[in-house]
Amino acid sequence: MIKTRLTDYFQIEHPILSAPMAFAAGGKLAAAVTNAGALGLIGGAYGDAQWLSHQFEAAQNAPVGCGFITWNLQKALDASPALLDSILERQPRAMFLSFGDPKPFAQTIINANTPLICQVQSVADARRAIDVGANVVVAQGAEAGGHGETRGTMTIVPEVADIIARSSPKTLLCAAGGIADGRGLAAALALGADGVVVGSRLWASEEALVHPNMLAAALEATGDSTIRSSVMDIARELEWPQRYTARVLKNAFIDRWHGDLDGLIANATEQAALWKDAWQRGEVDTANTFVGEATGLIDDVPPVREIIERLVNGAEEHLGRAAGLVVGTGG
Amino acid sequence: MIKTRLTDYFQIEHPILSAPMAFAAGGKLAAAVTNAGALGLIGGAYGDAQWLSHQFEAAQNAPVGCGFITWNLQKALDASPALLDSILERQPRAMFLSFGDPKPFAQTIINANTPLICQVQSVADARRAIDVGANVVVAQGAEAGGHGETRGTMTIVPEVADIIARSSPKTLLCAAGGIADGRGLAAALALGADGVVVGSRLWASEEALVHPNMLAAALEATGDSTIRSSVMDIARELEWPQRYTARVLKNAFIDRWHGDLDGLIANATEQAALWKDAWQRGEVDTANTFVGEATGLIDDVPPVREIIERLVNGAEEHLGRAAGLVVGTGG
Repeated sequence: MIKTRLTDYFQIEHPILSAPMAFAAGGKLAAAVTNAGALGLIGGAYGDAQWLSHQFEAAQNAPVGCGFITWNLQKALDASPALLDSILERQPRAMFLSFGDPKPFAQTIINANTPLICQVQSVADARRAIDVGANVVVAQGAEAGGHGETRGTMTIVPEVADIIARSSPKTLLCAAGGIADGRGLAAALALGADGVVVGSRLWASEEALVHPNMLAAALEATGDSTIRSSVMDIARELEWPQRYTARVLKNAFIDRWHGDLDGLIANATEQAALWKDAWQRGEVDTANTFVGEATGLIDDVPPVREIIERLVNGAEEHLGRAAGLVVGTGG
Repeated sequence: MIKTRLTDYFQIEHPILSAPMAFAAGGKLAAAVTNAGALGLIGGAYGDAQWLSHQFEAAQNAPVGCGFITWNLQKALDASPALLDSILERQPRAMFLSFGDPKPFAQTIINANTPLICQVQSVADARRAIDVGANVVVAQGAEAGGHGETRGTMTIVPEVADIIARSSPKTLLCAAGGIADGRGLAAALALGADGVVVGSRLWASEEALVHPNMLAAALEATGDSTIRSSVMDIARELEWPQRYTARVLKNAFIDRWHGDLDGLIANATEQAALWKDAWQRGEVDTANTFVGEATGLIDDVPPVREIIERLVNGAEEHLGRAAGLVVGTGG
């Protein structure tokens, strides 16, 4: 067992949160993570109220949290102003906001006594998350699958830890990006995190909502096979600010368009139709497989419970091994 | 004291190598690192035989190693075929090859009983380094200052560790990229590395060859202030393959040209002259400060001995702290 401030705060067994991955992290995944002693989150990313309601049902009353991309939450609220309140009425175990400004939603969440988790990709955004009262800051490195920025996990985690120590010592810190086994969890704790957010490793689980062809492509890939690109957002006709790219497996579609975004924009209607159709069919040469660099550390698709056990047991083993390298200087 | 396979192999006190940083890592820095119980390396990067000879003299017979960029070593050998032999005759403590193919030089180095260290930025290159007989593979993440690629330290280190465990268990592994304090060293050991290569933290030392204005700029910066770009290579008229970019502090020159490389190439003669003049004068709005994301963890310019002590003492502390989070499950 690994006990940290995060396990104390959420009253969970293991210092692990599942990433609220858009599309992949439904209620079944989130519930399995919670039931394995960690904290599971539904990926509400694009703010589809009906899908979300369905996924909360699929979680079967397991205490799970819910994640959003801030501007999509805003759009969803513009369409249905009661959405956030109705989510908070379900008493989610946490609300997890990524990208953009959490400020418009922070006080409502805090007032509902719902823990607020803010995922950030820069030191500047970490400061903002602390300022709006986040209970947990997630420092996400560029290794991560899906959307993110350029900072690496190895530096952003200790740098944010220093800011928290100086300005808001009660704020908790999780590391995200590239953490897929016990070594990653052990390293994150060594860097000063109170826990980790795990994406790709839980994406490749029995309970995630992922096309089998995409799982097969990820199992075959090394970490060298991924790339950060804007191609998929253009192809999905999603408006992401330029600073955010998404990490995916390289494929023929990336080869064709990554260096020619203007060309893709000029052919958007046609290419978007091709991409979306390929996504439905799991045609991985056109539609992209959203997975992080940790794909090179993943070679099976086990149930969530086994993944959580491996993470914790592996971290215990590797922390013990590494601490055992320290030898006395006396003699 | 932290004892690993790396300290055994090199018979050094601490599992730390200094990065053979072009221009910054002269003989004084390398000797100070070795004299502090780690292993120091001179940055022979661009293969200037006279500079190199001068720096070996500056090391004053301290056992130090020497690093090269492979294609510059090749160019230097084309000009003076005896260069590599003359370096090996000095019995450097190690030869450190970065970027490109180490194969043309590997056997000569190994035959001289000189330890061969190959720094890689991808799993594919790690496999090649193992194949040519590298004694130490350095897995370098994108967090690093100066040249590199896109993989993050958090994933490339365990992925290469797995390859070594399967295919060549005697090969040693170092982590590089973003390691500037005890937390980074502790995390690298937890990830499965036998030691670390430290660049930026030793760049900001009393013994490094760095313009004081650049040190001042780095101390002020957070990790958000850096960027990977090709602008500096164009401005220095250096031919780097497109896959390699260099991490530097953003400045006015980057703002102007990073999004307009074709424009920079079209104005190369004029802009190169401006950049090179600014470099000589330490004019940091034009010439770029070569430092990694770890700049956000660096706020002083101490002597090397103090840096090495902090790294080791900090790693001991953080490994002990993290291992202390593991609690028994019995009861």
